[in-house]
Amino acid sequence: MRTLTADAHGVYPIAPTPFFDDGRIDIASIDRLTDFYLSCGATGITVLGQLGEAPKLEHEESLAVATQMIRRAAQLPVVVGVSAPGFAAMRALTREVMDRGAAGVMIAPPNTLRTDDQIVGYYQQAVEAIGADVPFVLQDYPLTFSVQMTPGVIRRIVQALPSCVMLKHEDWPGLEKITALRGFEADGSMRHIAILCGNNGLFLDYEMERGADGANTGYAFPDMLVDVVRLSAAGEREAAHDLFDAHLPLLRYEQQPGPGLAVRKYILQRRGLLSSAALRKPGAPLTAAARSEVDHLLERLARHDARARLPSA
Amino acid sequence: MRTLTADAHGVYPIAPTPFFDDGRIDIASIDRLTDFYLSCGATGITVLGQLGEAPKLEHEESLAVATQMIRRAAQLPVVVGVSAPGFAAMRALTREVMDRGAAGVMIAPPNTLRTDDQIVGYYQQAVEAIGADVPFVLQDYPLTFSVQMTPGVIRRIVQALPSCVMLKHEDWPGLEKITALRGFEADGSMRHIAILCGNNGLFLDYEMERGADGANTGYAFPDMLVDVVRLSAAGEREAAHDLFDAHLPLLRYEQQPGPGLAVRKYILQRRGLLSSAALRKPGAPLTAAARSEVDHLLERLARHDARARLPSA
Amino acid sequence: MRTLTADAHGVYPIAPTPFFDDGRIDIASIDRLTDFYLSCGATGITVLGQLGEAPKLEHEESLAVATQMIRRAAQLPVVVGVSAPGFAAMRALTREVMDRGAAGVMIAPPNTLRTDDQIVGYYQQAVEAIGADVPFVLQDYPLTFSVQMTPGVIRRIVQALPSCVMLKHEDWPGLEKITALRGFEADGSMRHIAILCGNNGLFLDYEMERGADGANTGYAFPDMLVDVVRLSAAGEREAAHDLFDAHLPLLRYEQQPGPGLAVRKYILQRRGLLSSAALRKPGAPLTAAARSEVDHLLERLARHDARARLPSA
Amino acid sequence: MRTLTADAHGVYPIAPTPFFDDGRIDIASIDRLTDFYLSCGATGITVLGQLGEAPKLEHEESLAVATQMIRRAAQLPVVVGVSAPGFAAMRALTREVMDRGAAGVMIAPPNTLRTDDQIVGYYQQAVEAIGADVPFVLQDYPLTFSVQMTPGVIRRIVQALPSCVMLKHEDWPGLEKITALRGFEADGSMRHIAILCGNNGLFLDYEMERGADGANTGYAFPDMLVDVVRLSAAGEREAAHDLFDAHLPLLRYEQQPGPGLAVRKYILQRRGLLSSAALRKPGAPLTAAARSEVDHLLERLARHDARARLPSA
Repeated sequence: MRTLTADAHGVYPIAPTPFFDDGRIDIASIDRLTDFYLSCGATGITVLGQLGEAPKLEHEESLAVATQMIRRAAQLPVVVGVSAPGFAAMRALTREVMDRGAAGVMIAPPNTLRTDDQIVGYYQQAVEAIGADVPFVLQDYPLTFSVQMTPGVIRRIVQALPSCVMLKHEDWPGLEKITALRGFEADGSMRHIAILCGNNGLFLDYEMERGADGANTGYAFPDMLVDVVRLSAAGEREAAHDLFDAHLPLLRYEQQPGPGLAVRKYILQRRGLLSSAALRKPGAPLTAAARSEVDHLLERLARHDARARLPSA
Repeated sequence: MRTLTADAHGVYPIAPTPFFDDGRIDIASIDRLTDFYLSCGATGITVLGQLGEAPKLEHEESLAVATQMIRRAAQLPVVVGVSAPGFAAMRALTREVMDRGAAGVMIAPPNTLRTDDQIVGYYQQAVEAIGADVPFVLQDYPLTFSVQMTPGVIRRIVQALPSCVMLKHEDWPGLEKITALRGFEADGSMRHIAILCGNNGLFLDYEMERGADGANTGYAFPDMLVDVVRLSAAGEREAAHDLFDAHLPLLRYEQQPGPGLAVRKYILQRRGLLSSAALRKPGAPLTAAARSEVDHLLERLARHDARARLPSA
Repeated sequence: MRTLTADAHGVYPIAPTPFFDDGRIDIASIDRLTDFYLSCGATGITVLGQLGEAPKLEHEESLAVATQMIRRAAQLPVVVGVSAPGFAAMRALTREVMDRGAAGVMIAPPNTLRTDDQIVGYYQQAVEAIGADVPFVLQDYPLTFSVQMTPGVIRRIVQALPSCVMLKHEDWPGLEKITALRGFEADGSMRHIAILCGNNGLFLDYEMERGADGANTGYAFPDMLVDVVRLSAAGEREAAHDLFDAHLPLLRYEQQPGPGLAVRKYILQRRGLLSSAALRKPGAPLTAAARSEVDHLLERLARHDARARLPSA
Repeated sequence: MRTLTADAHGVYPIAPTPFFDDGRIDIASIDRLTDFYLSCGATGITVLGQLGEAPKLEHEESLAVATQMIRRAAQLPVVVGVSAPGFAAMRALTREVMDRGAAGVMIAPPNTLRTDDQIVGYYQQAVEAIGADVPFVLQDYPLTFSVQMTPGVIRRIVQALPSCVMLKHEDWPGLEKITALRGFEADGSMRHIAILCGNNGLFLDYEMERGADGANTGYAFPDMLVDVVRLSAAGEREAAHDLFDAHLPLLRYEQQPGPGLAVRKYILQRRGLLSSAALRKPGAPLTAAARSEVDHLLERLARHDARARLPSA
């Protein structure tokens, strides 16, 4: 059974949506990506997230992408992003992907929410819409969504809504938030949920030490994320940091809002996983200067991590 | 032919979406509303706008509502709101409603746009997505969308995109903006477009005097809007103001963001046009206190305008 | 004794800062305004508010304006706006104006606050800065400050901070908020505070009926506000609405953000209270078109309220 | 003569304001910091910036801090942050610090600006207020100020206002912006200005390669910034990256909004430059967990850079 639960841990890569240069969806690359995630030790996959270019897909395309990945991922739980401007669309997409075998859904807050009550109320309504039996991931990404959830608000959501099983933690700064949430679990005021970290893993090294269960992000070297999570869990602290630090210059570069997704797709192409680095409009390709900076970063990284030794694009 | 052009004028009511108490769409009320718009002198209709609860409709429902109104409205041009988080969904809905006879579409800016170039670029991409042959209405509503378009930005859009034929003017304050745009037309730096005013018509009295072509808003007395536009165009200034001022206390009350739509539906129900005042969730019905305030406002209005003399709800 | 308490009621006009055409402060007009407020039945005065052009004053000027009004107002309590980007400046100004006889201070939230805890925390820190013995007015104006305070948050502030004695209520929509706060008082969960309404009085008619204690706003006819508050308190409901409705077209015009202050100063000049309608930069004077619209509104108002029968500017 | 010009280059550290544990200003630490900046090769200093806790200082304190640093810095140009909610306060502070020998001032945009014209207009008014003879630094930090300036808007400001001599570049992402601005200089459409990079130097490595003139940020190892700028200018590309990369884990940690300043002060205290790491309220000290993370980062950094080998706090 592949139902998302609060025991989730490890690395759930955020899958990009592969396109051909002409904008059509590239099914073979979806399969290649999925196989790669399986082979490198991912414990789940998230599709149609913020960086999966979901809003650029027509409804049937979204379904096709999610379905393809769910089928290909065999035993791995696949979480599908269903954030939508209205509950009707959210409910419809949720129903369809759960029918096709999704393990759960991810819901980001609309950027109009302000007060604590508005945030809690929104998730209550969302659960009413999608059904209380569908496990969901709470996405906490203030930098992108402009919605600030305090630890207390997250606790209110977790306590009110049993189907909330995982936090995609991408607050920034966010280390104290993990400590606060784990403190709530320790003092019995909040049940346990999985905390997997996003924000391209920019603080994954210390997030693991604060009590995170893993990563849920799209960095182009998910195999590094898997290693860092494993080393950290195994208590090999300095080894985890050494590997993480070697990747940090590139990871930081990929974490830039806007061009970051083009960087990611470019690297995934160089890694042989995507046949094209194309984004759908209005996404722009990397400039020549940026491409050469990424090449330089990969070259420098390759001194420490052989996986970055790649053929030219 | 019912294609929206820059010669549009008069009153295009923003149609609410009628629901039964249980949330199902109420087709008979759509017909009743449409017939009423026709009978009171509307020159067009807009459906699936911000206050048409569009995000609460599933895709097939949106289509059904738009199609029903297009058919029923016979010769009147019907504009359909197609704002969407992505261009793919916008293109899909546009294609479908244009195929069914819509006169044009209305596009609001996403609230993430900030710079002038971002705004202009967004509309260029939108037109690329929906096709340059589809006439569109530029919705300028900073209070709701947090996007501020200067007159210069509107001119850039109008000059770059011939399919932009109408401005739904709801900036606040907005009188000088109309003057500035008409000034651009006068000095030859911008071609003529229709300017129809929204924001519940809160400044319609003086907007007409500044050069607006009419109203494009959802106030529950579109028949009053039609009269004010007609009187103003006929030079009957004080008569236009007298009628407008009589409605202003109620109009202001209905213009409140949030409960405003419930006020509107409640009045339309009292007018016999909607069988129910129900909103879909998360919309809330009026409180008893608010309902009695609206009743009071209607009673006071009835002293000046017999159309407000209504049976109890 | 003129210390602000939770028993405050009636009308506290928001005083504009009078300038000469060359930008110097016009002390004689301050005196004239103050005398007028006294004569027309105001029960207090607020200076250096958002629309008192406070940020355009140098520190010594702010002090001079506040001091002049405090002295002239004799027995009336004068509240001074002390909102500042930092607590050091807030503390310094508070100390100075309280020494000079201010009745209390008004504090608006910085527009960076988002969560409930941030808002409550901000006011706790502010009170720590200015001293728990200084009565303060909580300004709740989301339209301008982008900070949304739920009734629950206001209750937290009131309960935690005994020196919070008054709410400047300018939320929009805001009627249900007054009902909720008075409900907290009725159920014993919040102590009583004064609620005086701002937002140019746009909903003063029904706000009084919901339980407000009066008005705290800068509309150019504070004498009308005094009458409406008095009539409403005396149970003369229709008379209160008749007077209010007669002013609503102009009041709405003056309530526009941006040009509204120029409208207000222009009317106060026409009423003989200000020697000049000048704003300090970057404030712009009214355009000729706007001025003639205000003249027209005054002319129409004069048919119902003789106080609007004014000599030309 | 120490007047800021468009030829500025190198490293202008952003100086923190040193406090004792009880909140009083620590003059001896100001001197120690200044001497350190001089000794490590800084080419200028900026005081009272966003991270100098300027809003927490009373006016006389601000002046005292700036004056102390100006005197101590001998020949180095000192830039003073004068951002204020109103032009009156900005003008007053500017006058005072220029009289005391400041080389120029830095002005950040208020977070209410949206359109291109509003941004340009704001700087025009600011220059009118402070005087066209005072050189100023344009601070471009959208992450903190929510104001987005396109390269075109910066060009408009530079061309309209000759006293704009430097850009504090902290847009994120920002590499292409440097390329665009240098492109404007190359094509003759914009005169040359200094571009010094902020945002804690997170992209300083590639910003230098894109054409930046140096750094203007507060990272606790300004001596590293000086080395990177020097190595980069000297064409020692890999050496510059090696040093930068060694610092990146710590630099990223210090760049966190909120706790970042406490991190910085803690490190400066460990370096013996500040006698206390105290922040004024509402600033919070580092948690024990955070402190131990910083210690860990320093320890790891010390393997590559002996300057990080510090006695315990």
